[in-house]
Amino acid sequence: MKINFYTMNAPHLILIGCGFAGLELIKKLNGKPIKVTVIDKNNYFNFQPLMYQVASGGLGPDSIVYPLRKIVSKMPNVIFRMAEVNFIDTNQKQIYTSIGKISYDYLCIATGAKTNFFDNKELEKYCMQLKSIPDALDLRSDILQEFEKALSESDSGKIERILNFVIVGGGPTGVETAGALAEIKKYVIPADYKELDASKMHVYLIEAAPRVLSSMSEISSRKAEFFLKQLGVEVLTNTSVISYNASNGQLTLSNNKVLETDTVIWSAGVIGKTIEGIKTELVSRGNRYKVDAFNRLEGYEDIFVIGDVAYMTSDKNYPNGHPMVATVAQQQGRLLAKNIIRLLKKEPMQPFIYKNKGSMATIGRHKAVFEIYGFKLQGYIAWLGWMFLHLMLLVGFRNRMMVFLNWLWNYITYQRAIRIITRPYTQKS
Amino acid sequence: MKINFYTMNAPHLILIGCGFAGLELIKKLNGKPIKVTVIDKNNYFNFQPLMYQVASGGLGPDSIVYPLRKIVSKMPNVIFRMAEVNFIDTNQKQIYTSIGKISYDYLCIATGAKTNFFDNKELEKYCMQLKSIPDALDLRSDILQEFEKALSESDSGKIERILNFVIVGGGPTGVETAGALAEIKKYVIPADYKELDASKMHVYLIEAAPRVLSSMSEISSRKAEFFLKQLGVEVLTNTSVISYNASNGQLTLSNNKVLETDTVIWSAGVIGKTIEGIKTELVSRGNRYKVDAFNRLEGYEDIFVIGDVAYMTSDKNYPNGHPMVATVAQQQGRLLAKNIIRLLKKEPMQPFIYKNKGSMATIGRHKAVFEIYGFKLQGYIAWLGWMFLHLMLLVGFRNRMMVFLNWLWNYITYQRAIRIITRPYTQKS
Repeated sequence: MKINFYTMNAPHLILIGCGFAGLELIKKLNGKPIKVTVIDKNNYFNFQPLMYQVASGGLGPDSIVYPLRKIVSKMPNVIFRMAEVNFIDTNQKQIYTSIGKISYDYLCIATGAKTNFFDNKELEKYCMQLKSIPDALDLRSDILQEFEKALSESDSGKIERILNFVIVGGGPTGVETAGALAEIKKYVIPADYKELDASKMHVYLIEAAPRVLSSMSEISSRKAEFFLKQLGVEVLTNTSVISYNASNGQLTLSNNKVLETDTVIWSAGVIGKTIEGIKTELVSRGNRYKVDAFNRLEGYEDIFVIGDVAYMTSDKNYPNGHPMVATVAQQQGRLLAKNIIRLLKKEPMQPFIYKNKGSMATIGRHKAVFEIYGFKLQGYIAWLGWMFLHLMLLVGFRNRMMVFLNWLWNYITYQRAIRIITRPYTQKS
Repeated sequence: MKINFYTMNAPHLILIGCGFAGLELIKKLNGKPIKVTVIDKNNYFNFQPLMYQVASGGLGPDSIVYPLRKIVSKMPNVIFRMAEVNFIDTNQKQIYTSIGKISYDYLCIATGAKTNFFDNKELEKYCMQLKSIPDALDLRSDILQEFEKALSESDSGKIERILNFVIVGGGPTGVETAGALAEIKKYVIPADYKELDASKMHVYLIEAAPRVLSSMSEISSRKAEFFLKQLGVEVLTNTSVISYNASNGQLTLSNNKVLETDTVIWSAGVIGKTIEGIKTELVSRGNRYKVDAFNRLEGYEDIFVIGDVAYMTSDKNYPNGHPMVATVAQQQGRLLAKNIIRLLKKEPMQPFIYKNKGSMATIGRHKAVFEIYGFKLQGYIAWLGWMFLHLMLLVGFRNRMMVFLNWLWNYITYQRAIRIITRPYTQKS
C-alpha cells in the first residue's frame, strides 16, 4: 500500500518544534507506519551554530536556514503546519494552536530553549540576543548602525560608549560572537570606516565562571582566552552583570566596575521553552520538563519531550540533566524515533545515554579550539576542522555551497560581505 | 598632493541619494578636484531591477544590494553618511539631516521615486509594493504566509480569496512579478504544498492601458502578454482599480468587476521623492523637479537634480520628461559628473540628450522580451540576453557570482530556494 498521511490508518504523532531534535526524529520516522504532523512557528529549520555569522555580516540568513516544507515534502507520512501552540490538553489529547485544535495519539514536545535573562526585565528589554533569525538580523543592523552613529558624533566620551560592545556569557556563542566583533574591528573598520579610529572600539566578554568555554577542557579554555586576547577582546572572567541602565548606557558588574555601552549582547545561558497545559510540577531546573530514560514526560505514556526542553536525570553521567546542546538533541531525536517504532511493535524501548563526542568553538581566522573523542586541537587545524564539520552538518547542498563560497569570499577579502542594514533596528532608546 | 576629503581645498558637493544616477555620478567624480559627501538613508546601493526576485524567493537581498561604504572606500575625495534629509535651506546652502546640518557649495538631488498610489490612502495602507528591500522581504513573507493560511482554511471561498494574487500595473515590475508568481504556482506549490490544489491559485495582472509593457513596441507587448497567458496569468488590460476594501478583500475594477483577494501588489507607477525646502512651484508633473538641459534646478546655479526625480523638457524627443528608468538616471549621472568638472574648469557644460538603447522584461523560464538598438527578440534568446545583461549590470563580483549561482540552482531544481519567512508580515488585518 502506498503511504499517504491522509489515507493511512496509523497512530498520529504531533511534533511541536523542528530544531535539531525534531529534525532527527522525523528523518528516522520517514516512511514508518505512523502519521506525523510537524508544527513550528517558523517555516524553516534554523542551523543555530552559525547564527552569530549572520549577526556579524558573514552569511545571509538563507545560507543557514532550510525550508521545512522541502524536508517534509519527501516524507509521505509527514505533514507540516506553521503555527504557534498555545495550550496542550493532555486529557482530551488535543493541542490548541493559532490555526485551530489538533488531536494526537502521541505528542512530542521539542520546543527548544530561549535566552535566560534571570527574570531581569530591563536586561530582557535592552539586551540583544541570538536565538532566532530576526534576533540575528537585528544585531547585524544594530552593530552597523552603531558605527554610523559614531561617525556623526563629536563627543569622544559618547563615541567610546557607542563603540563599546559587551558580550555577556563566555559559552561558544559568546566566544564566537566576541571573536567575530574583534575581527570586524581589525579588518572591516579600517577598510570601511576610515574616519573612525578603530582603537576606540572595544569588545568585552564577561563570564561569571573562572574561565570561558567552561564545558570544555581547561586547555581549550585557556587557548580560547589567549586567542580572544590576541584579537584584542577584553575578557573578564569571575565577573557577572548586576544591572544595565539603557538610558545612560551604564552596565554595572559584580566587581563594582561600570562599563558604558550602548550594545549588550546577552548569551549568558538558556532556559527551556514550555507550553501552557503541562502541570507546573513537571517543570524542573532550567525550565525543562522532567522526563524518564525514554524521554517520556513524567507520568505520561503518550507525551515525549526531547532536546533542550527535556530534563533527564537517569543518565548516570548527567545526574543534573544533559547540556542544552545540539548533539544531545540530535541523539535524543534519533533514539526516540527508534523507541516509537519499538513501541508500535510492542517491543521494549531503550534508555537514552548521551555519547559526548566533543565540542568546539572558533574565535577567528585560523583560531579555534576543537575536542573530539578526547583529542584536543587548537589553532589552524582546529579551525579547518570546525569549518569542515559545520559544512557537513548544514542541511542541504545549496546551503553548504552558499556557506562555503561566502567563507571563501570573506577569507580572501578579509571582509564581511553582508554589511547591510536591510531593516534598521529601532528597539533601543 | 595626495587627495583626501578632509584636507583637500576644493568645493563641496553633497549628493542626496545613491541609486543608479548617484552611483554613476560619484564613479565619474572619483579622484577629481571636488569633495563629495554622499547621503543615503540606506547603507547600500539597491539593484532595483531584480527586487521582484527577492520578493519571490529566488534571490537573497544580499545578492542584489551592495554596501555603499565599500564603493566609497576606494574614492579618496568621497565620504558617505547614512542619514535622512529633512530640509534644504537653499539660501544658507545647508541641508538639515537626521545627523545634523551640513553645508554645501553644490547640491545634487538624486532621491529617486516612490510608489504612486494616486493619493488613495486605503490603497497605500493595504497594498504591497516593491520599492525597497523591506518591501520585497515583506512581500516574500506575505506570499508564503498566504499559502500557509490557505492550508488551515476549510471554507473554499476563503481559500480562493487567499490564493488570488492581484498585480496592478503592467510595466516591467508588474509583468515580472506576475510571471514569478505564476511560476510559483506551477512549480513550487505542487512540490511544497501537496495538500493545496494549485489550480485554486490565480494571478491577475491589471493594466489601465490597452497593452502591457506600453513603453515597448507593440510586438514585445503582445508577446509578453502571450507568455503571461501561457503561464496562466489572467491579464486584464484597459482596466483600472477603483477601490480596495481590505476587510472583505474586495478589489473593485473600472469594468465594475470585483475581485476578492487578500494580496494586491501595487506597481502602477511612481512619482518623484521630493524634499522640503525646495519651492513647490519647482515641482512639476509626477512630483519631479523642473531642471534645465544641464540638470540644474530651475533658477539655481548650485543645485542639480538627476534621475527619476528630475523633470527635463529640453530634450526634443522627450518634451514631457524622460521615462523614470535606470538608464536615464545613469546617463544623467555620468553627464552631470562631466559637466561639474567642466564647470570647475569654467568650460561650457553640455546639454543632456537621452540615448535610448532599449528595454527588456522577463516573464519566466525561457520567456522574455528584449529590445536593443531597434533589434527585437522574444523567447529563449531574449531570456538569455536578459540574464546576461542583468549579471553584467550588477555591482561587484560577489553579487554577480551569488545571483548566477542562485539562478543556476533555481533553474535546475525548478524551485525558489529562499522560501523562508524570516520576519512575518503583520501589516494586514
